[in-house]
Amino acid sequence: MSAIQKNVEATSEKYTSSFTQGHLALPPAKKYLVLTCMDARIDPARAFGINLGDAHVIRNAGASAHDGLRSIVISEQLLGTQEIVLVKHTGCGMLTFKNEDAYGIVEKNLGSDASAELKARGLDFLAFPELEQAVKDDLMYLHDTKLVPDNVAISGWIYEVETGKTRRVV
Amino acid sequence: MSAIQKNVEATSEKYTSSFTQGHLALPPAKKYLVLTCMDARIDPARAFGINLGDAHVIRNAGASAHDGLRSIVISEQLLGTQEIVLVKHTGCGMLTFKNEDAYGIVEKNLGSDASAELKARGLDFLAFPELEQAVKDDLMYLHDTKLVPDNVAISGWIYEVETGKTRRVV
Repeated sequence: MSAIQKNVEATSEKYTSSFTQGHLALPPAKKYLVLTCMDARIDPARAFGINLGDAHVIRNAGASAHDGLRSIVISEQLLGTQEIVLVKHTGCGMLTFKNEDAYGIVEKNLGSDASAELKARGLDFLAFPELEQAVKDDLMYLHDTKLVPDNVAISGWIYEVETGKTRRVV
Repeated sequence: MSAIQKNVEATSEKYTSSFTQGHLALPPAKKYLVLTCMDARIDPARAFGINLGDAHVIRNAGASAHDGLRSIVISEQLLGTQEIVLVKHTGCGMLTFKNEDAYGIVEKNLGSDASAELKARGLDFLAFPELEQAVKDDLMYLHDTKLVPDNVAISGWIYEVETGKTRRVV
């Protein structure tokens, strides 16, 4: 068992011993979802004020609305959420490369079979060159798709990894 | 401004005032990623023992490895993570429906334009009928894809929303 796996087990033992929230319902109590980045420097519960049971939290590389669409539709249409809080962040890895860079790195690190698989899947890494514009573009995407109805409130934010601050963009 | 947006602003003000971790680096310090569900009843940082800066956290409906593949490849090939902790959970919404149910709900709730868009995108909601098997299937998927090299340690777990416990499956 790896150190990381041991940590999960040890943490769970402690967490379980004081756990009192086994009664929470499946649908988020406050009927909203947060879409943010997988970045290790973000703790959505503490930074954005999400109590256990309140909101869905979707996280992927770059807080991509496109990549999160499946989860967003499930959250809203099957589990009743009615608001989207989208949070990208300063210092995001997605600002540092382009698709062709990632394709090159996969070929170099993992070889031609992996590279061929990547091409066959046509994986788009969805990097972006400018942060505020990326927030606006994703909000536009969410407004444009018919899978997110017009009565869903959508706001766009930037979390600053340097200060811990979350500021509104749109 | 909605109550939820006000809560983000108020929380941020408080969080920022005691924030001391602006120095953390972009690559996760402990070089691992956690893939878990967007479910509102999961707080990965507390339940799985993730300190700020330690690990990427990818979350989507059902903790789907397939849906998370883009983020996983970015995490490992561009940001140096070397271990995957996959955690699905009891009471998951993904156990409660099938693709055709979700397609029917979208058509009923959002109308024929949304339904047509859903079909055009060919969106697969990736629901699953059995929890432990779904963990095993996702681990198999991660072992099979050449985009995750063999030296990446992968473990599969189930979080119990009723007890707060995280137990190992594979």
